[in-house]
Amino acid sequence: MTTDLTPSPVRLHAVAGKGQPEPTPELEQLYRGFEQELLVPLWTQIGDLMPRQPQSKAVPHLWRWDRLKALAAQAGAIVPVGRGGERRAIALANPALGGRPFATPTLWAAIQYLMPGEDAPEHRHTQHAFRFVVEGEGVWTVVNGDAVRMSRGDFLPQAGWNWHAHHNAATEPMAWIDGLDIPFSYYTESQFFEVGREKLPPAERTTAERSYSERLWGHPGLRPVSMVQAQPATPLLAYRWVDTDRALADQLALEDEGQAGTLSPGHAAVRFTNPTTGADVLPTMRTEMHRVRAGGATRVQREVGSSVFQVFDGSGTVTVGERTWQVARGDLFVVPSWQPFSAQASAAGALDLFRFSDAPIFEALHSHRVQVTV
Amino acid sequence: MTTDLTPSPVRLHAVAGKGQPEPTPELEQLYRGFEQELLVPLWTQIGDLMPRQPQSKAVPHLWRWDRLKALAAQAGAIVPVGRGGERRAIALANPALGGRPFATPTLWAAIQYLMPGEDAPEHRHTQHAFRFVVEGEGVWTVVNGDAVRMSRGDFLPQAGWNWHAHHNAATEPMAWIDGLDIPFSYYTESQFFEVGREKLPPAERTTAERSYSERLWGHPGLRPVSMVQAQPATPLLAYRWVDTDRALADQLALEDEGQAGTLSPGHAAVRFTNPTTGADVLPTMRTEMHRVRAGGATRVQREVGSSVFQVFDGSGTVTVGERTWQVARGDLFVVPSWQPFSAQASAAGALDLFRFSDAPIFEALHSHRVQVTV
Amino acid sequence: MTTDLTPSPVRLHAVAGKGQPEPTPELEQLYRGFEQELLVPLWTQIGDLMPRQPQSKAVPHLWRWDRLKALAAQAGAIVPVGRGGERRAIALANPALGGRPFATPTLWAAIQYLMPGEDAPEHRHTQHAFRFVVEGEGVWTVVNGDAVRMSRGDFLPQAGWNWHAHHNAATEPMAWIDGLDIPFSYYTESQFFEVGREKLPPAERTTAERSYSERLWGHPGLRPVSMVQAQPATPLLAYRWVDTDRALADQLALEDEGQAGTLSPGHAAVRFTNPTTGADVLPTMRTEMHRVRAGGATRVQREVGSSVFQVFDGSGTVTVGERTWQVARGDLFVVPSWQPFSAQASAAGALDLFRFSDAPIFEALHSHRVQVTV
Amino acid sequence: MTTDLTPSPVRLHAVAGKGQPEPTPELEQLYRGFEQELLVPLWTQIGDLMPRQPQSKAVPHLWRWDRLKALAAQAGAIVPVGRGGERRAIALANPALGGRPFATPTLWAAIQYLMPGEDAPEHRHTQHAFRFVVEGEGVWTVVNGDAVRMSRGDFLPQAGWNWHAHHNAATEPMAWIDGLDIPFSYYTESQFFEVGREKLPPAERTTAERSYSERLWGHPGLRPVSMVQAQPATPLLAYRWVDTDRALADQLALEDEGQAGTLSPGHAAVRFTNPTTGADVLPTMRTEMHRVRAGGATRVQREVGSSVFQVFDGSGTVTVGERTWQVARGDLFVVPSWQPFSAQASAAGALDLFRFSDAPIFEALHSHRVQVTV
Repeated sequence: MTTDLTPSPVRLHAVAGKGQPEPTPELEQLYRGFEQELLVPLWTQIGDLMPRQPQSKAVPHLWRWDRLKALAAQAGAIVPVGRGGERRAIALANPALGGRPFATPTLWAAIQYLMPGEDAPEHRHTQHAFRFVVEGEGVWTVVNGDAVRMSRGDFLPQAGWNWHAHHNAATEPMAWIDGLDIPFSYYTESQFFEVGREKLPPAERTTAERSYSERLWGHPGLRPVSMVQAQPATPLLAYRWVDTDRALADQLALEDEGQAGTLSPGHAAVRFTNPTTGADVLPTMRTEMHRVRAGGATRVQREVGSSVFQVFDGSGTVTVGERTWQVARGDLFVVPSWQPFSAQASAAGALDLFRFSDAPIFEALHSHRVQVTV
Repeated sequence: MTTDLTPSPVRLHAVAGKGQPEPTPELEQLYRGFEQELLVPLWTQIGDLMPRQPQSKAVPHLWRWDRLKALAAQAGAIVPVGRGGERRAIALANPALGGRPFATPTLWAAIQYLMPGEDAPEHRHTQHAFRFVVEGEGVWTVVNGDAVRMSRGDFLPQAGWNWHAHHNAATEPMAWIDGLDIPFSYYTESQFFEVGREKLPPAERTTAERSYSERLWGHPGLRPVSMVQAQPATPLLAYRWVDTDRALADQLALEDEGQAGTLSPGHAAVRFTNPTTGADVLPTMRTEMHRVRAGGATRVQREVGSSVFQVFDGSGTVTVGERTWQVARGDLFVVPSWQPFSAQASAAGALDLFRFSDAPIFEALHSHRVQVTV
Repeated sequence: MTTDLTPSPVRLHAVAGKGQPEPTPELEQLYRGFEQELLVPLWTQIGDLMPRQPQSKAVPHLWRWDRLKALAAQAGAIVPVGRGGERRAIALANPALGGRPFATPTLWAAIQYLMPGEDAPEHRHTQHAFRFVVEGEGVWTVVNGDAVRMSRGDFLPQAGWNWHAHHNAATEPMAWIDGLDIPFSYYTESQFFEVGREKLPPAERTTAERSYSERLWGHPGLRPVSMVQAQPATPLLAYRWVDTDRALADQLALEDEGQAGTLSPGHAAVRFTNPTTGADVLPTMRTEMHRVRAGGATRVQREVGSSVFQVFDGSGTVTVGERTWQVARGDLFVVPSWQPFSAQASAAGALDLFRFSDAPIFEALHSHRVQVTV
Repeated sequence: MTTDLTPSPVRLHAVAGKGQPEPTPELEQLYRGFEQELLVPLWTQIGDLMPRQPQSKAVPHLWRWDRLKALAAQAGAIVPVGRGGERRAIALANPALGGRPFATPTLWAAIQYLMPGEDAPEHRHTQHAFRFVVEGEGVWTVVNGDAVRMSRGDFLPQAGWNWHAHHNAATEPMAWIDGLDIPFSYYTESQFFEVGREKLPPAERTTAERSYSERLWGHPGLRPVSMVQAQPATPLLAYRWVDTDRALADQLALEDEGQAGTLSPGHAAVRFTNPTTGADVLPTMRTEMHRVRAGGATRVQREVGSSVFQVFDGSGTVTVGERTWQVARGDLFVVPSWQPFSAQASAAGALDLFRFSDAPIFEALHSHRVQVTV
């Protein structure tokens, strides 16, 4: 095994510190042996590998919606959509993750842009995905033959390994946000991909108000007796803004009446869930909508794992670790693992924040932690 | 232990049959010894105790709504509601269960009746319960201080050990159906009961359109982030007819469009579920609404455990084992364990059937079986 | 429905008490109407049906092993074993359960007796079962072709719907205890039964020391990679006394060393579990072995559901509700639901108690309660 | 957000291919805009990010035990063990993972070495760990005060966040293998670490044959009634070789008798499991021992996720992807995600392979796949 001609990638240097060996010639010889045999001692790495608490490689960062939107529109004019590239999706690249298209170490967040009449070709992949619409309407996402319309405020989960395509049936371009677990799948090397039909039949380029999935699964607390098995991801393909908005308004009204419901005073929040289990919509991603009352604020909280937020409505101030930003509709920002997060709504109106995170991964593995610090 | 003065309740007689002992004097002496020591041999009992398939002690039976209603109204005139009797509830007594108030060996079904202005006092018990409203409106069920209005078609689950009371705020009497697992709790001897406050405060005798529970939990696929733990029974206290009706209509419309959704051709069905788990609303009772298209029929099915049905709307024919009845709105009937059941809607319109059963008990214990025979 | 010629089994009588109606002629007329329509009002039944806490129909009772054994031996002489009667099993009949062969409302406990060379024919049933051997050896229980020897102290679970037969390969008769959920299956009407082969082939009348199941599953913390799915009941067919005894001794020794492990001071206890889930061996029955140190005692405890105990070794005093007995090897007694239980070992030596109960039913349905009162 | 002085890490280049945009000046301008705004388009990345099937960055590789052991011994002579460096552990660095101490993208595998009388200081961390002993004895791993001896063939799981230290009580140095989920925790940024006591008290530097955990949990199918809650990781701290060896031998003997049990003909395998759940010992790592009969072979299999193997005994040939090696006792090798693996035992004797993998991560997230190709 030591006969490979390629030089070893291991490079070892004596480091100073408590519990570290003396930098003697013998140590240097030992390190050369390690390098040759592709070995790395823990004692030179422990600070980085085993920190007292998560030390994210990612940093807090904000992307402005107007800048994203403008570049996406520019791409709409010159970049085709079709087989090979598959999607006109432009991903957030956390500035501390080496230029990779990863918003956080586990999460992908991209703006996708479709011109009038355009189709994004059908494919499927094991990566879980969702769409969230901060503005516009007119695009249909066709999932296993079920056409789901997309409008402002709608949340459309897309469990792994389902065939899907997009079609812009409107006369205007449309942009929305895609969230996926691409970085997680990439690091853990667990992903599969297949291309689908080259063209959808007319019946799947539909104009129905409600998708099949909504007609089967969109009734509160009710499920078809023909489909009573638990499913790892939600069969409901659209969570409409009218419902989400009402649920948030109800929580704040209940708070006004002295009833429980909000997450903390002035802070309403709903989680999108899988009606077959009550758990998160997707095995790897948690998705929520938060509303902070005008002039109100969330608590300061940090948790294991990372999040991406998009401002859905209103304006205010958000603080992530040592960064603070004024935010407005459409702005996106990331909260790295274990960084404190809080948000304040402006006095002018409520602040609505869409959030997605990798929390289900840690909950499934019993390693989730949350700490409310204020 | 044989010094008890009370005579032994054991009575043994030699029985003829394959594998049975000769009825000799020695056998008689042995049986007298068994009786004295409170022992019963399997070989005299096995046919009854271990049948080839469930042989229900209960029989199929139908109760006519008009007769029930008339008797309940009569009770309304002369039977008070208050502490001690607790409820003006009149239970179906399966004719083959010895005059006990058990619709089936595990299920209680009663008509409850409340006069204008009356209150049924607050109490709680570990038996799980629900209300189903086949007609009328105006009563409030107050659960842990949350007043829930009741109207035709509404289904109101009531998990065990929650405080609850009823109040008729209308000017007319109101009747509805109570379903409970009283016989199951009774046989298994697992029930607790407590009386509550003597009088509800005015704030809990409310006129709000939606209960707190509906405002928190009545949004499809959404749950409050403040309440993300799984709960053994549903926190949603009302499943409204408008939603149930729409879900059934959607299934039949999907069938018309060639899409999956119905349970069998012409037969739509939804199950009431716990949004925190996707499972049945109550740990011991399954509750469903079925709609058979005009002129259509269900398949013939039998399953382990028993069911009670109430005709919610329409008319038609139902067959249970060897019994067949014409049924109309409000009629109640029971399907004993492993008896074949089917229903046909009249040509005039759809047949809507509310059903509850003890299936979750058997599913939890891995002993459920279903057989579709036609 | 009121045209049945059989008289109604419902009999109603006005009862005195708080919340009860006046015994007027109108009430009598109402009750006659209820009887005719097969209806029973809650207010006449609530005290029995909905007690403040479980009020078992069963009573504490003790059966002496020497009496049981003598009667079983007598049966061995004159009662054949074969198809039809199926087993020479003689069940405990709780004196307050109407002479039925039910030790408690949910549990069957019987002494089974097999003469040298005899075979109990193969069958299967959905009722779950186990054998526990208080003395003797030489019988083989053959489960799906796997012959499992039985010796003093061994516990042999027998999940529902597995083929099984017994064969006495020794020169002496052998007796053991059978525990089943027959009463529970009977009341809930969920049981199936099939007869098997008339004669087992020689290969299944074996003399191997360890059964196939023990060779696959009898290694602590290890499972075959070829069988990694969870199973509702244990695949391990014998839990040997050498292991049980050592586990109990270890707990008491740990206590002596100041380490945790015992259930309470001087009281060691192990539960027989399903290695594929860590849960109870059978979906409906909990089985445990308890050891009370010489001169020691258990705490006083009551719980929902009923138990049957057999003294495996030692002697002492047990108290169930208001009954107290001196007990010795082989004696059996029942603890009805919610009756306080405690045991004291004599000063001469430890008291070993085998126990089975219906607790998994209540745990599965979220209705289990335990109260330690002293 | 574009005011950061640091240059953007994003570098974009037009790529040729189906579905790719023309490399025009407009495209170059667009790409500069993307770079400035920290955006990366999917269409330039999709081949790497979303392959048809897992394309591991890692490569198959083999480390020879004699070389590892010699370097570890050399380290024993010159590298101290103490607070700061924490452990004299030397990790395998997959040659394709950039010189990082990662055997695979998710798994850490290291040789740990302790001189006579040495102590590795107490600490705890959320990373899950285990020890596996290919040779030697005399070291004690002290977990929360419970001293667990280590001997050849023993497997010692170490769930996250338990205090632990090591002590070499023997007169010889001792080496063993540590497996951890360090790379997974590192990428997902979910790890915590704390230092413990500086010195263990004498009572924890023990010489008992069996640890407390073994006395409580080491009895097949039995669990303490005092500890009946499910736990996310095993409470049993040692799985002894005598049990593992017997379980493997039993499977092969059953195969000889025509009974089921082996994974495939000639290939026995046991999985180390958590007795409280029957699932894997640790939430993130699967651990197994495999035995291939002399002259026999495993099937060819590939699966999502990566594995590390160590040859425990015997010799033979292993094939991973396109690499094939002759292996002998102690040799370690890695199987990257979705690479076919097979092993053949030499004719001289059985080949025993210890294996650990990240499969529980994928099973928990519903993304596990296994394919048996021959």
